[in-house]
Amino acid sequence: MAKVGVLGTGIVGRTLASKIAALGHAVVVATRDPEALMARTDPDARGLGPFSGWLGANPGVRLATFADAAAQGDVLFNATSGEAALEALGAAGAANLAGKVLIDITNPLDFSKGMPPTLLVSNTDSMAEQIQREFADAKVVKALNIVSAPVMVDPAAVGGGDHDMLICGNDDGAKAEVTRILKEWFGWRSVIDLGDITGARGLEMYLPLWVRVMMSQGSVAFNIKIVR
Amino acid sequence: MAKVGVLGTGIVGRTLASKIAALGHAVVVATRDPEALMARTDPDARGLGPFSGWLGANPGVRLATFADAAAQGDVLFNATSGEAALEALGAAGAANLAGKVLIDITNPLDFSKGMPPTLLVSNTDSMAEQIQREFADAKVVKALNIVSAPVMVDPAAVGGGDHDMLICGNDDGAKAEVTRILKEWFGWRSVIDLGDITGARGLEMYLPLWVRVMMSQGSVAFNIKIVR
Repeated sequence: MAKVGVLGTGIVGRTLASKIAALGHAVVVATRDPEALMARTDPDARGLGPFSGWLGANPGVRLATFADAAAQGDVLFNATSGEAALEALGAAGAANLAGKVLIDITNPLDFSKGMPPTLLVSNTDSMAEQIQREFADAKVVKALNIVSAPVMVDPAAVGGGDHDMLICGNDDGAKAEVTRILKEWFGWRSVIDLGDITGARGLEMYLPLWVRVMMSQGSVAFNIKIVR
Repeated sequence: MAKVGVLGTGIVGRTLASKIAALGHAVVVATRDPEALMARTDPDARGLGPFSGWLGANPGVRLATFADAAAQGDVLFNATSGEAALEALGAAGAANLAGKVLIDITNPLDFSKGMPPTLLVSNTDSMAEQIQREFADAKVVKALNIVSAPVMVDPAAVGGGDHDMLICGNDDGAKAEVTRILKEWFGWRSVIDLGDITGARGLEMYLPLWVRVMMSQGSVAFNIKIVR
């Protein structure tokens, strides 16, 4: 049984936590202010239902602060938004992140100018690189950011699973561990290593294309396969 | 028989011109200074052989200035580099581009800081949008920029052709014509329309990911398939 911390309580955090808890692992989901989150009774800006209702339906999951969840987890998923990620990880605390495998799913999307979104950082830098620089002792692996939440934990639902997950990071051991998690926990058949963490520029800059494909398909249930 | 202008004499321009001429169409390939190009006897910076040798092996192709080729062609391929594209199209002349289908293959890659390249324009704008703004009467369709030159004209060589070409542009008639060309001339089985020309941001921002996949595969013979 693994100890897992999931930072973020949006659709990505909930989907991951629900799946990982169902596998029997100890999951702590984290938010800035747990009491305030539990007090909310209205849907969020994107129409997602109140967290308290979701937590009631997932009794195996515990809600905690970023610091608490990061301290508890051996493996951490960063499922916060691009705007909130660095602050959330700062609240988690560098000491609690040190030595941990930190799976960074964040896309630095800026919706402030409407759809389609632009990126908060791109081209010569990326969110994952910013995180790795800021928390040098964490083992950051960029992964899962190229698919929607349902596809992350159930790749077989799309084309029978015949498509690829692309990851990158500086630590080979961490990438091997993430590859194992993706395959054994979620059922990914193919995980391609794109090298060091600067590969996150490509993975994050893919998002504007993902958005256009999503709009043309009218669905978030898709992924890419590298055909050779 | 179609009249085709190919702007650019690098590997992309040569590959397209060679294939299109072999199909029996009238092809004019364009460069800034044809005499200077024909006088060169050394390989270029990327090791591509002298143009004169290539032209000798492709007697159906004529070499001309940008303006001459643009005037002759009913369909134009922009196969210039990102750094040279706007200047080349300016030399072709707005009047010669007006009303023409202009297939923009350019990737705004900046190799000045070494590998992997960054983009000269991205996120809130794209090369194709710059071209469409500058030459408002041309019917710009972004296409083919997501694959290497050999794959452009022979998609079947990769995975039997079971992968997708993604295009975008403001003119539906032009996109229908480009789709026909891609399928009938080059053998593309699937061409997906991503909407208006702003979709080029996604298509061009995909390039950093393409470069990383290329490095991980050790080959340029690949493309993506949208799996649903």
